[in-house]
Amino acid sequence: MDLGLIFLSETVGTALLLLLGCGVVANVSLIKSKGLGSGFLAVSIGWGLAVFAGVTASYSSGSHLNPAVSIALLILGNITFVQFLVYIAAQLVGAMLGALLVWITYRRHFDEEPDPATKLGVFSTGPAIRAYGSNLVTEVIGTFVLVFGILAFTNGGTPAELGALPVAFLVIGIGISLGGPTGYAINPARDLGPRIIHAILPIKGKGTSDWAYSWVPVAGPLIGGALAAALSIALLPVA
Amino acid sequence: MDLGLIFLSETVGTALLLLLGCGVVANVSLIKSKGLGSGFLAVSIGWGLAVFAGVTASYSSGSHLNPAVSIALLILGNITFVQFLVYIAAQLVGAMLGALLVWITYRRHFDEEPDPATKLGVFSTGPAIRAYGSNLVTEVIGTFVLVFGILAFTNGGTPAELGALPVAFLVIGIGISLGGPTGYAINPARDLGPRIIHAILPIKGKGTSDWAYSWVPVAGPLIGGALAAALSIALLPVA
Amino acid sequence: MDLGLIFLSETVGTALLLLLGCGVVANVSLIKSKGLGSGFLAVSIGWGLAVFAGVTASYSSGSHLNPAVSIALLILGNITFVQFLVYIAAQLVGAMLGALLVWITYRRHFDEEPDPATKLGVFSTGPAIRAYGSNLVTEVIGTFVLVFGILAFTNGGTPAELGALPVAFLVIGIGISLGGPTGYAINPARDLGPRIIHAILPIKGKGTSDWAYSWVPVAGPLIGGALAAALSIALLPVA
Amino acid sequence: MDLGLIFLSETVGTALLLLLGCGVVANVSLIKSKGLGSGFLAVSIGWGLAVFAGVTASYSSGSHLNPAVSIALLILGNITFVQFLVYIAAQLVGAMLGALLVWITYRRHFDEEPDPATKLGVFSTGPAIRAYGSNLVTEVIGTFVLVFGILAFTNGGTPAELGALPVAFLVIGIGISLGGPTGYAINPARDLGPRIIHAILPIKGKGTSDWAYSWVPVAGPLIGGALAAALSIALLPVA
Repeated sequence: MDLGLIFLSETVGTALLLLLGCGVVANVSLIKSKGLGSGFLAVSIGWGLAVFAGVTASYSSGSHLNPAVSIALLILGNITFVQFLVYIAAQLVGAMLGALLVWITYRRHFDEEPDPATKLGVFSTGPAIRAYGSNLVTEVIGTFVLVFGILAFTNGGTPAELGALPVAFLVIGIGISLGGPTGYAINPARDLGPRIIHAILPIKGKGTSDWAYSWVPVAGPLIGGALAAALSIALLPVA
Repeated sequence: MDLGLIFLSETVGTALLLLLGCGVVANVSLIKSKGLGSGFLAVSIGWGLAVFAGVTASYSSGSHLNPAVSIALLILGNITFVQFLVYIAAQLVGAMLGALLVWITYRRHFDEEPDPATKLGVFSTGPAIRAYGSNLVTEVIGTFVLVFGILAFTNGGTPAELGALPVAFLVIGIGISLGGPTGYAINPARDLGPRIIHAILPIKGKGTSDWAYSWVPVAGPLIGGALAAALSIALLPVA
Repeated sequence: MDLGLIFLSETVGTALLLLLGCGVVANVSLIKSKGLGSGFLAVSIGWGLAVFAGVTASYSSGSHLNPAVSIALLILGNITFVQFLVYIAAQLVGAMLGALLVWITYRRHFDEEPDPATKLGVFSTGPAIRAYGSNLVTEVIGTFVLVFGILAFTNGGTPAELGALPVAFLVIGIGISLGGPTGYAINPARDLGPRIIHAILPIKGKGTSDWAYSWVPVAGPLIGGALAAALSIALLPVA
Repeated sequence: MDLGLIFLSETVGTALLLLLGCGVVANVSLIKSKGLGSGFLAVSIGWGLAVFAGVTASYSSGSHLNPAVSIALLILGNITFVQFLVYIAAQLVGAMLGALLVWITYRRHFDEEPDPATKLGVFSTGPAIRAYGSNLVTEVIGTFVLVFGILAFTNGGTPAELGALPVAFLVIGIGISLGGPTGYAINPARDLGPRIIHAILPIKGKGTSDWAYSWVPVAGPLIGGALAAALSIALLPVA
């Protein structure tokens, strides 16, 4: 596949994913927003539909949108190493772009929001109980389910006629079930891209970007994705 | 396509869209209604399913239901300027008809509701923080995602077997993620039609129709739809 | 179609519809139930999925499950008058059976529930603001949307591959949007069958079955269904 | 079908089912979890999507994931008795594995949670009102709907193009409608497997595993599944 096409498509898709994904967190958490207090179910559904939109828009590159997916497909030999690098570069750029658009969309609410942690929470994930080892394990397990599920879809587990719906439902499920301890990054680009944007942007009254935690939602998903690739060969036999 | 058929089909579809869409706002916000206080997630799901019903009923005209969609298809050369005018006329008439039906459906609750702003909120959108420039940008971004997503669907991003489901899920996603600052008109007819009805109807104890804000949910969606059309050619390459 | 097959299939399907439909009301409203207080969104989703289950189980009779649907198909000439009578008899029997099963399922919670109105609410609908004329109009409009939508589905508005999903989503949408004033019977059997069961069963501490209101959720849906049939010919032209 | 394939596939699928299913209970109930208090609708949706993921991953063995399904297919002659034993052994092993993974995912929250009943509730079901006879009947009815619905799907009631979606929607519906009195095991492996894990694991401050109730969510679902098989022949005639 053409590297320029991959870059363009993944950038657009990941930007849409982050715009709607971080957008739902903004809506339920920023002061005076109409969705304030809508809760975790709304957040889980919002991220699932964000995946739906992003996957739909980037179908021409296979809709990875996530370095954990790309590393799994690299391990399985579906993409080359050069393609892998283009995928993750585009995902990071797209994630940054999407986070920037969320800030623009909710600009006035960011200005009036008094709590710096709430502002960071729109951009990046953080642990409910800070314990890096446990948090890492949680991200590994969540991402394993995501990538293993995606590999099961394409291995015959779901009909092609459903398009992007299965992965959207899977992401809603992972969020609502496994998202409690860490806020489920399950995607290195989803967490790192917005964190960089948070660090760069002149957000009024912003606090720390919490770089001490930032390696967890990068390393965990990459490990989870690699594990899913390795185990999918043994655990997903063709009928 | 026959202009009479377009007019009839778009009027029926947009009336259904507004009946269910403004209906869910009535249900969650009007006094004594059984759904009072169901919150933003319910509203987002309600509007998404309203789109589902409207799109289903107006399939014979291509289910635009929204001048922002029609302007995009005009720019892309899919419809003529005369057809465009018929589409948006029908959408405005349908939106007014749907809003009228909501008032009839919830008549007793409108009569007992003491707050004029709550009554207007059933008909038209309004900003959480009034700042016309920011509000306009928010509407542009939300509508861009809507129309860009619809163009991605028809460009190969989703299977035809899913019918009206993808656009319904997209609308739920946009609402829950980007609807916080302005209540997401993302459709000039959806906002202007009911506002005209609010101004005309003898609603007991109604207040202002807030015409000062009314240009934002008309201009924003038209700009967003036009932008989506322009960028779709560059950003949605065929695989 | 064989009358015995129609009777069996519609009885089974309507029993499932009522078991899950009245079941969700029991779960969110009866004392000590684990879903107590889950609210109107949960009720709307529950009734939609109840329709999904019922429609799936009675596909061999065309899954009417509702006299308002049967009367529309009688008017359109799809079924004979004798078949119509069998359909509605089966729907009433099925509705009574389903309501009986809900009482058995939630028996202990009915025993401990102190409020008679809450008990009746599990079985039958009632108005938020009692005004028979307005309540009737609300039921007419809600049922019109239901039957008009179903006729649009079968007229080309939705792909057959989606099975019972479109009608389930439509019912969720109608409930959440138009269910506020009357609790949306939109089906004479759904309301009358359980009301009869409520009157018959030895429910501990039950109050009135509110027969004064009982004609509204019978007449309203029949009028709405008939209107939908009449208008569908004019408003749903084939593309 | 190869017994080893059955065992592997059902173990993986049931592990995923329990990981996401017990996971959503952990998220909404354990102290400091981000989804704390999300309520019964979130739990119902979570279990439905857990089924979606599990069914997708174990398609090569027909995705039973539940002894109540396997006993029905044994009665209907679709599987042999030896296969039946392999199915239920794998389901129990998978359920234990999934519950173990939930404990690992939410380890820190289990450590800080003060209430032993909340901890057990993540693993196994329990009655809202303890009355073994009634609780058994509730589980019989819930499982009957599940297995009867699955048999209706495969008997022509739903198109194959929907994959695992219909069963996921059915499980959401059963949970939200019939789950109030017992927390809906509707699957012996789903309840017994995690209860064994709860008994074995060194969970900090855990209380009783409530073995006195444990037979109800085993016997009820087996009876319900067998009833569904017996009645499906009479009640699901081919059109």
